[in-house]
Amino acid sequence: MDADRLERQIAFIVEIDKLKHVLRQTYLVDGKRRENSAEHSWHLAAMAVLLSEYAREELDLARVVKMLLLHDVVEIDAGDTFAYDEAAHADKNERERRAAERIFNLLPADMAGEVFALWEEFEAGATPEAKYAEALDRFQPILLNYGSGGIAWREHGISAEQVMARNRHIEAGAPALWTYVRGLIDRAVSSGRLASGA
Amino acid sequence: MDADRLERQIAFIVEIDKLKHVLRQTYLVDGKRRENSAEHSWHLAAMAVLLSEYAREELDLARVVKMLLLHDVVEIDAGDTFAYDEAAHADKNERERRAAERIFNLLPADMAGEVFALWEEFEAGATPEAKYAEALDRFQPILLNYGSGGIAWREHGISAEQVMARNRHIEAGAPALWTYVRGLIDRAVSSGRLASGA
Repeated sequence: MDADRLERQIAFIVEIDKLKHVLRQTYLVDGKRRENSAEHSWHLAAMAVLLSEYAREELDLARVVKMLLLHDVVEIDAGDTFAYDEAAHADKNERERRAAERIFNLLPADMAGEVFALWEEFEAGATPEAKYAEALDRFQPILLNYGSGGIAWREHGISAEQVMARNRHIEAGAPALWTYVRGLIDRAVSSGRLASGA
Repeated sequence: MDADRLERQIAFIVEIDKLKHVLRQTYLVDGKRRENSAEHSWHLAAMAVLLSEYAREELDLARVVKMLLLHDVVEIDAGDTFAYDEAAHADKNERERRAAERIFNLLPADMAGEVFALWEEFEAGATPEAKYAEALDRFQPILLNYGSGGIAWREHGISAEQVMARNRHIEAGAPALWTYVRGLIDRAVSSGRLASGA
């Protein structure tokens, strides 16, 4: 056994414990507190397994799950960027790239390269795996926001039109889920969870 | 698309959000709060991917990850059972089986059967996948306890001998990780994180 290799893997595993402290804007379904990025990553990975039949294209599900388990780790340094915060999105990529370089390089070089490439693949959103993963990353907060009665939407003054525009590319990864989301947005508006400018 | 099928999958996905409220005895590495079971499941699934080279036997990693993502969902009803609480272990299986029946049956029947079988496989601990998954489930809290300075060990008056006895079967799933754990327990004792009766 290569002791240094295992030490580096464990250093990374201990480091990513910090993702449990990174708070997102979304509230849990019961509305009692905000979700953290580790919980979010778990929920997404489980959803990837449970909803794989709705992926638009044939894909390698194991790669999707790996991508979802590790894609948010950069937030340990870069913080979570709220989906509707356009100003914060301006330097998001630069902040996250620096974070990826520091954190992924805790791993042995071969693994660091692999995880970095997986993170870049997710960010680029071009492969079937990345499109499906991104669709879930958008779908999950909508489910939580709807479930919690729309708390985060109201706190940030988000409208149905913004939710539609921001999440439309769920369709590129999982068309059936986008159909479902459109129905959910309608129900969110009619039940007063979400404002509509129309 | 079968709308009822998707509704059932989503009902399950919304239900398992509750796992984020189930607190374990283990503290996060920074010692600031206890870990919840959703975060724990995320950490285990990531570890399964990162440490797969140490599994004792050839295995289907995708099945391990799926098992780890969903094995703790029963705790939504049954609660987390502390590894060293022998009284609570007496009826753990019965409590968890009732929980599994309620929660997994929110899914469409074919998926409920599959997830139930995966949970039983984990509990039985007989396959290469279950042995590796259980090894990680034991290894992760030891890493967190060590990292946090042994808070949970001290709170519960756990000794090095108990940690050794309780976690020895890490060796059955991942021998190199058990070697690492034995070294870590020695360092935990010599640094005052863990009491030793010897």
